[in-house]
Amino acid sequence: MKGKNNAAGRWIPAKINGKPAIPFQGVGKYKPAGQKTSSPIVSCADFPKDGNKVVPSLRKALERAGLRDGMTISTHHHFRNGDKVANQIFDTAAKMGIKNLRWFPSASFPCHESIIKHMDSGVVHYIEASLNGPMGEYCSRGRMKGQGVLRSHGCRYRSIQDGEVHIDIAVIAAPTADPFGNANGLTGKSACGLLGFALADSQYADKVIVVTDNLIPFPCIPWQIQGNYVDYVVTMADIGDPTQIVSGTTRITRSPARLLIAEYTARFIKEAGIMKDGFSFQAGAGGTALAFVLYLKEFMKEANVKARFVRGGSTKYLVELLEERLTDYILDGQTFDLDGVRSMRENPHHMNTSPFTSYNYHGKGNFASMVDAVILGATEIDVNYNANVVTHSDGMLLHGMGGWQDCLFSNCTILAVPSFRDRIPVIVESVTTLCGPGELIDVVITEKGIAINPRRKDLLKALKGSTLPIKPIEEIKKEIERICGGAPSPPKVDKEHVVAAIQWVDGTIIDVVYKVQE
Amino acid sequence: MKGKNNAAGRWIPAKINGKPAIPFQGVGKYKPAGQKTSSPIVSCADFPKDGNKVVPSLRKALERAGLRDGMTISTHHHFRNGDKVANQIFDTAAKMGIKNLRWFPSASFPCHESIIKHMDSGVVHYIEASLNGPMGEYCSRGRMKGQGVLRSHGCRYRSIQDGEVHIDIAVIAAPTADPFGNANGLTGKSACGLLGFALADSQYADKVIVVTDNLIPFPCIPWQIQGNYVDYVVTMADIGDPTQIVSGTTRITRSPARLLIAEYTARFIKEAGIMKDGFSFQAGAGGTALAFVLYLKEFMKEANVKARFVRGGSTKYLVELLEERLTDYILDGQTFDLDGVRSMRENPHHMNTSPFTSYNYHGKGNFASMVDAVILGATEIDVNYNANVVTHSDGMLLHGMGGWQDCLFSNCTILAVPSFRDRIPVIVESVTTLCGPGELIDVVITEKGIAINPRRKDLLKALKGSTLPIKPIEEIKKEIERICGGAPSPPKVDKEHVVAAIQWVDGTIIDVVYKVQE
Repeated sequence: MKGKNNAAGRWIPAKINGKPAIPFQGVGKYKPAGQKTSSPIVSCADFPKDGNKVVPSLRKALERAGLRDGMTISTHHHFRNGDKVANQIFDTAAKMGIKNLRWFPSASFPCHESIIKHMDSGVVHYIEASLNGPMGEYCSRGRMKGQGVLRSHGCRYRSIQDGEVHIDIAVIAAPTADPFGNANGLTGKSACGLLGFALADSQYADKVIVVTDNLIPFPCIPWQIQGNYVDYVVTMADIGDPTQIVSGTTRITRSPARLLIAEYTARFIKEAGIMKDGFSFQAGAGGTALAFVLYLKEFMKEANVKARFVRGGSTKYLVELLEERLTDYILDGQTFDLDGVRSMRENPHHMNTSPFTSYNYHGKGNFASMVDAVILGATEIDVNYNANVVTHSDGMLLHGMGGWQDCLFSNCTILAVPSFRDRIPVIVESVTTLCGPGELIDVVITEKGIAINPRRKDLLKALKGSTLPIKPIEEIKKEIERICGGAPSPPKVDKEHVVAAIQWVDGTIIDVVYKVQE
Repeated sequence: MKGKNNAAGRWIPAKINGKPAIPFQGVGKYKPAGQKTSSPIVSCADFPKDGNKVVPSLRKALERAGLRDGMTISTHHHFRNGDKVANQIFDTAAKMGIKNLRWFPSASFPCHESIIKHMDSGVVHYIEASLNGPMGEYCSRGRMKGQGVLRSHGCRYRSIQDGEVHIDIAVIAAPTADPFGNANGLTGKSACGLLGFALADSQYADKVIVVTDNLIPFPCIPWQIQGNYVDYVVTMADIGDPTQIVSGTTRITRSPARLLIAEYTARFIKEAGIMKDGFSFQAGAGGTALAFVLYLKEFMKEANVKARFVRGGSTKYLVELLEERLTDYILDGQTFDLDGVRSMRENPHHMNTSPFTSYNYHGKGNFASMVDAVILGATEIDVNYNANVVTHSDGMLLHGMGGWQDCLFSNCTILAVPSFRDRIPVIVESVTTLCGPGELIDVVITEKGIAINPRRKDLLKALKGSTLPIKPIEEIKKEIERICGGAPSPPKVDKEHVVAAIQWVDGTIIDVVYKVQE
């Protein structure tokens, strides 16, 4: 294979899926040229005057949209592991005798495992998206015909906007919609809160199909997806499994180690002087992140400090911050529980955002770089603060990137991780797969100690004299290896067989994933 | 001059402003080809990481945006006759020694009269937009160097989207904005309600400048204009004159003739069976339209009928319909009084719309064709139901088109007009300037009688036996001519000198305006 090393020292093949790959050139170094892409000009004369775009079935909609071999079909993942629409699309395509489709979801989940059979049979050529669980394993084993291309949420928006990925048909599952195609995620039995992951799809796809199980008379307000972008509307009994779309409750960790990590993180933000009036932060919806929010909330109340905004994925705990007026706003990309959905529906200070506003690196700025502190996870972090979120130390691709890369542009990026998992150290000499360059990662917090990136002299100075266990990262690594009995074994992979590429936010390739040996 | 007759029988020159003109081909007949335009791909690396895009002055912003000779500068008209920003742009350009600019506002008003001196001196080459009052007269007299091009609100969006008009620099005056460029019209001393007329400008211009007199910390919510499209933010003391932006109160006509027209119109809608549960209508903010809303409201209450939505321009009277639950929603393109602004700010059922959602003819449908009845005005209507809204019978160009053409696609388009103005008949043999083809105009209501377009056999049937004064249009015309002493004199114009072109919603030319002889 032809290829060369990128600016991070990772070998990148000359081509991915037969198209030239641009190697990562360093943060902020690759400058795009040209114009954004656009969709075809259409005429109202070709659309129903009464605004009723309802067609009798998904199959009819796909037929009218001109589905044919080799097309790219996109879907969104706001229903997470409860999505019931994507499988039906490819089942229908199979019945129609269509082959060689590219599936371009905003993420794939275990519920999509049935699409593996369509990849085996050739209906689906490959998936270009985050590959969670079984789809990731399928790819890692070298069974997928095309190469996976993993992008962050912002990078996916960028790839569509920049014309890198052309969507022939977007299928947007919507908890509520009207016959014109206006749609939102706020109400209906499949309510998921918002539909931001489908925004680019609606704007740039040639044809757009909205699928809903809650059709209401025009106008569906708010129109998170605008009907003016929509060609066809389809109703079906169930577009998702509500129990898998949002959880009734989100659970705080009970693990003493993770609670300690959460407490360290909240204390770090307080002691670093980040927690002050008008500040902002983003944390995820994992058990540690939720515990962190509770610790920080107590500190905020003690110090009488109010945030200007917090970023979702929202949960009950963020909603409480808003309702107790400890933040002016929640700017939210996805709602993780029913409280999040309710709050977004009822509270105008709980604002839905999109990968365009939050994360698109080829925009005139985005929200991510304005966040004072972000708390993220990782599967591996190395001594140069590089981090991995997609593969495990055995090389297996099992996770998508979500907005992880996009969030690294925060003023203070903290990776809050357990020091080991299943007796495999998380802090390593060199990450198996590079997803985030160390220059953007400021702090690593484990239950065994806190490491501050030496580049962040300001943080080192601010924390001088702190009672927090601040140590060099190498020291934490040694301690973990002592506990786990050494560093992880190198993955057994076939370096001649690239199964997936990891894009950086600007569309360059920061690393690749290799086939895992059986 | 070369040219030919269009499908409406109007002569169209081969070129307008040196570019080929496409003659009108009939409603829904001209089908566009190709892709929408797009703006350049940019990188967050070139924008401030902290999101602060504030520059010290309008001049600095124009300089950084690369203002130079021959560029197209756009502005919006949500401040109506109270705008203080457009004049400053061209005063600044004059100081910078810039020449030959094209001004592309969403409409020009008498408050912009000072730009005439910049046209005389060559700073501004010409205005491509609705030309109200003095600007229209300047154009009509043949003094403007370029030819005026008049477009409806939807047609302006379309012309930008289709790449027909390329905006180099958009300047968006915003009553509230944050340093990132998120902006809305809901709050601040210059509150105008919404900023929809500037939407296309923000999406498609190469450079976007937001000017505000109310800068608030990020995030400005809601972001009617998204900061991700904005390059620079400028603050100034006053962006508008609040007394001219919205009126404290909107006034109902006291003219007995106009009250009669309003009553006829409301009765017509009731008797035609349009006024039923779930119906929709749009009326303007003129004195007759307001009176119509009051009459219709009484009928709705009597019949216990509720509308699904009403279209703004909103006023106190529409807001009362919403607050008294006589409509589920107001879908609003501009707020005409303080009640409208308040309601849009406070009531999520009072939804802001844009020329994209409401009117763009090169979209996948738009809202206008879903409205059950629309009540509009006209300067002239002819016996074939063709109508004019831009010139008077003397040929003078004095009015813009607003959303008038876009609204003609309603299910029942009613022109409610006085039978004569200043003793000049409104119903004529042939309109001076054709703006709307008769096939889209269903009913003409004057105080002397109501004419139903013979094409609308359904309406003729529904109104059979009505006590409303339904008559052939020729009969009404004769009666008016008897009162006024004959038909209007033909305009004294120079047919060799085209001063402006009237576009149809699809970008074809439906008619032209000629120089008025001194």
